[in-house]
Amino acid sequence: MTGTAGIGTAVADDLPQLTKEGVEDARRRLAERLVTTPVVRCEALDGLAGTRLWLKAENLQLGGSFKMRGALLAVARLAGDGSRGVVAQSTGNHAIAVARAAREYGLPAVLVLPVDAAPTKIAAIRAAGAEVVLAGTALAERTALVEQVRTARGFDLIDPYLDPDVVAGQGSATAELIRQARAEGTALDAVVVPVGGGSAVAGACLAARGHGIRVIAAEPLAVPALGAALRAGRPVTVPVGTTIADGLRPDRISTLAFELARDEVAQVVTVPEAAIAEALCLALVHARLLVEPAAATALAAALRLPAPRPAAVGVLLSGGNVEPGLVASLLAGHLQGEESR
Amino acid sequence: MTGTAGIGTAVADDLPQLTKEGVEDARRRLAERLVTTPVVRCEALDGLAGTRLWLKAENLQLGGSFKMRGALLAVARLAGDGSRGVVAQSTGNHAIAVARAAREYGLPAVLVLPVDAAPTKIAAIRAAGAEVVLAGTALAERTALVEQVRTARGFDLIDPYLDPDVVAGQGSATAELIRQARAEGTALDAVVVPVGGGSAVAGACLAARGHGIRVIAAEPLAVPALGAALRAGRPVTVPVGTTIADGLRPDRISTLAFELARDEVAQVVTVPEAAIAEALCLALVHARLLVEPAAATALAAALRLPAPRPAAVGVLLSGGNVEPGLVASLLAGHLQGEESR
Repeated sequence: MTGTAGIGTAVADDLPQLTKEGVEDARRRLAERLVTTPVVRCEALDGLAGTRLWLKAENLQLGGSFKMRGALLAVARLAGDGSRGVVAQSTGNHAIAVARAAREYGLPAVLVLPVDAAPTKIAAIRAAGAEVVLAGTALAERTALVEQVRTARGFDLIDPYLDPDVVAGQGSATAELIRQARAEGTALDAVVVPVGGGSAVAGACLAARGHGIRVIAAEPLAVPALGAALRAGRPVTVPVGTTIADGLRPDRISTLAFELARDEVAQVVTVPEAAIAEALCLALVHARLLVEPAAATALAAALRLPAPRPAAVGVLLSGGNVEPGLVASLLAGHLQGEESR
Repeated sequence: MTGTAGIGTAVADDLPQLTKEGVEDARRRLAERLVTTPVVRCEALDGLAGTRLWLKAENLQLGGSFKMRGALLAVARLAGDGSRGVVAQSTGNHAIAVARAAREYGLPAVLVLPVDAAPTKIAAIRAAGAEVVLAGTALAERTALVEQVRTARGFDLIDPYLDPDVVAGQGSATAELIRQARAEGTALDAVVVPVGGGSAVAGACLAARGHGIRVIAAEPLAVPALGAALRAGRPVTVPVGTTIADGLRPDRISTLAFELARDEVAQVVTVPEAAIAEALCLALVHARLLVEPAAATALAAALRLPAPRPAAVGVLLSGGNVEPGLVASLLAGHLQGEESR
């Protein structure tokens, strides 16, 4: 899982976006169009982690997540190519991002989500004027419906895991984080990113190249798609357990993410549900940031890195689209836990 | 309440810190030592406000509030003058800030707080290695105790409302906000700041000079110390009603703040408790920022500005030191309110 040889590099070489330079280019192009989200330091979380954390607050990004990055690049390209409309499947944030980007370019958009998608995410998509279709809970059910829309309406697919613009765009969040830490005099030793379908980890692998930065992948114990793929030597579909991390529910890692991760991910940390819930509350109480459970999964992993720990760790807080009711109940549970300690 | 003539200017002219240039100097000196907190935009809050808001996220400042600014400048000066130790009274944030600044300069510190101070604030002061003394609930009780400590131990007072370094430091938050908005191409028309003892509003008046920016003061209906002073034509002690905005409980505005506000504050908005609670939840849910009730008071005022509204409004989100239990209960109330709508 180290080195840069292998199919990952081969894949990357095929497409200019899927290189370190492609990610840097995405970062530069997006810097003027999106929010350069802050990197937040927090002594209390550093204390709990036993190392220093740089928290990339993409919960403050337009659309509430880093997925806005890739969507904006992909929609821009399709709009330039005369697209009639766009279609995408997503557990939520990619859909919000595509809907918003499509609105910006005046393109119609259809978004396919699982039936158990977070209501606030569905509302955000509709608020951007896009059409929402719900389809089952498994990735395969959503991709089947996306194919129908493509065929029937002649819309262009924006794949959340394989589209090279999307992967480069998602990677730009990590590139920006590395750059912001460096501007403050810190060379990060590692970055922790959450793993759903794999665009964040694929992008992070590209962004971290040549920096000597270890990429650490965080995934819920309930949906360990990357760990299972790495053990199997190929992407495999895993049973989807119950997880609050709705953004990390894809039950299979993309081929692209797998190939990059196999060669370039230093470590996979699987996170139990209780630790995701606790990390969400700790981010709120200590760093004063509301993050969604997917982002909390990355923070939870950073809080439980085995020793010897990297000395300067970037954490991709990927988004902040979370149900207020879930936050209230997690916070109540956190406070009860504090009392009983 | 308009123009820059009067005693406010006279006061300011006596001390180099209490000028627009003094605040700019503070901003420059602090930029290297503190966090340049982000200015957060939020479409949903803009929609609720009926205008565009620039939210200065000083809840992400070191020590959890903008009070770190003034304390650091004041302690630096005293340490340079050979101080034996520092003492201050505060409802919480100034005390945290002085404790942290004193630790940085190796000075002992005694902080006097009301008996109903927020437990997390007391814990933060003790964590910085300072001594905490609790004294009644009224400002006069705390100032009496501060005098005892000064006399008995020869410590230097850092007044939270009158110390010119403190006022200039607090003003640097507004100066930075104005500058950050301008860097993004926006000339703010107004800034909304919360009013407790008055250092924020005094600093904001100085920072806003010459920019054509209206200073709007936000205070809880339960402790309307500035409004009462402006009506009386002098600072008066008001009865302290029950408010969740623990940072805004001082029952009397400082002479300095009164004189500046009388001449330079365009508008005072008083905010009922329910609106403070709601604004705290709206900041959390929409802007993904955890703020304390004092900061929420400023946001609440910005959300209820009477028409015609200024087109670009800066809001000083002064801090994020809030009891998690209070957040949980406010959020639960907010969600019940949403359901019943």
